Amino acid sequence: MTMSDFTSLKFENNKLIYINQTKLPLVEEYVTTDDYERIAEAIEILEIRGAPAIGVAAAYALALSIKNESEEQHKTFNEAYQRLAETRPTAVNLFWALDSVKEIFDNNQTSSSLFFLLINKAIEIHQDDINKCEEIGNNGVELLEKDSTILTHCNTGQLATGGNGTAFNVIKKGFESGKVKFVYADETRPLLQGSRLTAFELSKAGIPFEILVDSAAATLFAKEEIDAVIVGADRIAANGDTANKIGTFNLAVLCQHFNIPFYIAAPISTIDTSISSGDEINIEMRDQTELSFINDVQVTNSNYDAYTPAFDVTPNELITAIITDRKNYQPPFSF
Amino acid sequence: MTMSDFTSLKFENNKLIYINQTKLPLVEEYVTTDDYERIAEAIEILEIRGAPAIGVAAAYALALSIKNESEEQHKTFNEAYQRLAETRPTAVNLFWALDSVKEIFDNNQTSSSLFFLLINKAIEIHQDDINKCEEIGNNGVELLEKDSTILTHCNTGQLATGGNGTAFNVIKKGFESGKVKFVYADETRPLLQGSRLTAFELSKAGIPFEILVDSAAATLFAKEEIDAVIVGADRIAANGDTANKIGTFNLAVLCQHFNIPFYIAAPISTIDTSISSGDEINIEMRDQTELSFINDVQVTNSNYDAYTPAFDVTPNELITAIITDRKNYQPPFSF
Repeated sequence: MTMSDFTSLKFENNKLIYINQTKLPLVEEYVTTDDYERIAEAIEILEIRGAPAIGVAAAYALALSIKNESEEQHKTFNEAYQRLAETRPTAVNLFWALDSVKEIFDNNQTSSSLFFLLINKAIEIHQDDINKCEEIGNNGVELLEKDSTILTHCNTGQLATGGNGTAFNVIKKGFESGKVKFVYADETRPLLQGSRLTAFELSKAGIPFEILVDSAAATLFAKEEIDAVIVGADRIAANGDTANKIGTFNLAVLCQHFNIPFYIAAPISTIDTSISSGDEINIEMRDQTELSFINDVQVTNSNYDAYTPAFDVTPNELITAIITDRKNYQPPFSF
Repeated sequence: MTMSDFTSLKFENNKLIYINQTKLPLVEEYVTTDDYERIAEAIEILEIRGAPAIGVAAAYALALSIKNESEEQHKTFNEAYQRLAETRPTAVNLFWALDSVKEIFDNNQTSSSLFFLLINKAIEIHQDDINKCEEIGNNGVELLEKDSTILTHCNTGQLATGGNGTAFNVIKKGFESGKVKFVYADETRPLLQGSRLTAFELSKAGIPFEILVDSAAATLFAKEEIDAVIVGADRIAANGDTANKIGTFNLAVLCQHFNIPFYIAAPISTIDTSISSGDEINIEMRDQTELSFINDVQVTNSNYDAYTPAFDVTPNELITAIITDRKNYQPPFSF
């Protein structure tokens, strides 16, 4: 196992280089491309995943769509915009990133350096995400005691963002500063983002860790070995109720029972003050086959009915603090 | 999907017929044999599993070892006893069943009907298990309200016992009497006994159900749809602390948080009054490969360290009642 770090997304010599997440951690394969259609496909088939990472990759892809001078530049750009917008229709970061690049395009259509203006915008979006991850990490680490053992759920690191991650960067900076000594990573059924992707990131960062089935948390917590649980967020309501990967709510209840601090870490843009509470968040139901197939291998009948929420909503009263790039929020939450 | 019932273990025409659990639910394959070595192998490679089911199968196997008249009957019997005892060295039911058959052998070595005496003992062990399952079911169903929705974990039905199961038989009798209308079956990582075996049993019994990942319980409970959680037990201490499949303790904590009754169902023989509390129960750690391989397909690196408890110990204060073949015990538990 190499202890060197890795790069999830990189822009070099006018090409995007990304790690193919579908093959991790068994195969570490990088794709180098300047073809926006290839990047659109990568987002569609989850070679690139994680809301912030998708936004960054789509921004580069949209800029790359006009890399060749052409009289049909406007048509090409609009086709690329449409194509990229259709890859993951529910990803808020994706639309925000595409619109940011489109604004530059609309305001500079006659510029001879239009391509470079778009590339610079994509780089700015990427750098902004890197900075946010740094600030989340710096803020979160303030909450940790020396030599803490942390449990995390799902994947929130370099693979999910343009930078060093959200919850993961709190852990990483904690490790670098002596505040984190060990990490437990929930495997995160059904898609195993924990045992595949977070384990890969922890291994690359040289952080000592163990993976575990999601249902082993109570036994672990009863041994009093865990100093904090830190997870990411998909959407946070105005009252602090937090939608995140299925299994997060379970952990929050267990943390209350065992008196363990439970932290959410996410960019401020994740907070949606247009919704007053988690009751307004629709829970997306996934396909039954995520339970009956694992890596294309059938494990049980696909005609068995299944209850398949993709995420859950943790009530604010179970959250010790919400770590953002702006500051750490304590309850009662007011943003 | 057929709604007809199935038989997990059956003795007919001096042969054992069993369903191969390793292939369920995708293939429904029965093995018919009068070869004790084949049955020993079946127990070893988990074609037959579940402590009571193993005991019943081993009793038949040991009796079958002397089916052919031979001058070396004593030697053959002892070899079979040794072979069967080595199949699953930690299964208490296995040794108890083998010793019950051995006692008949030792006391009747010169009898011309020795083989039939042994077969009758095995049938008696089997029938005794069937009766215990019936009594557990009858006692447990008294605790349920009409039209209940139940969540269960792991596998406790016909596949795990010689009869209709422990927790599963409470559910089955509840369904037959109108007290149970719907069941949620945890998939039960890492070995998926819930989504494979319990789902198969529920489907065969015609009971409406859905499978779910273990970590979706909090979201389900928050919708207030669950009237009780009923699970089995591997070992119960004198104070009621209960060892069962990993994930049971998580559910018990969630039940307390959401004010849902949490029931254990097990034969009285599971209660081990020689240990005063769950602190004295050693937690068996399983191999890392149960997390990195699923059905022989590698899903993550097998060199990632893993925390792999096979079961957990639920403290007595989280248990609403312990259902046994003798009676239902309420806290404070005294057996």
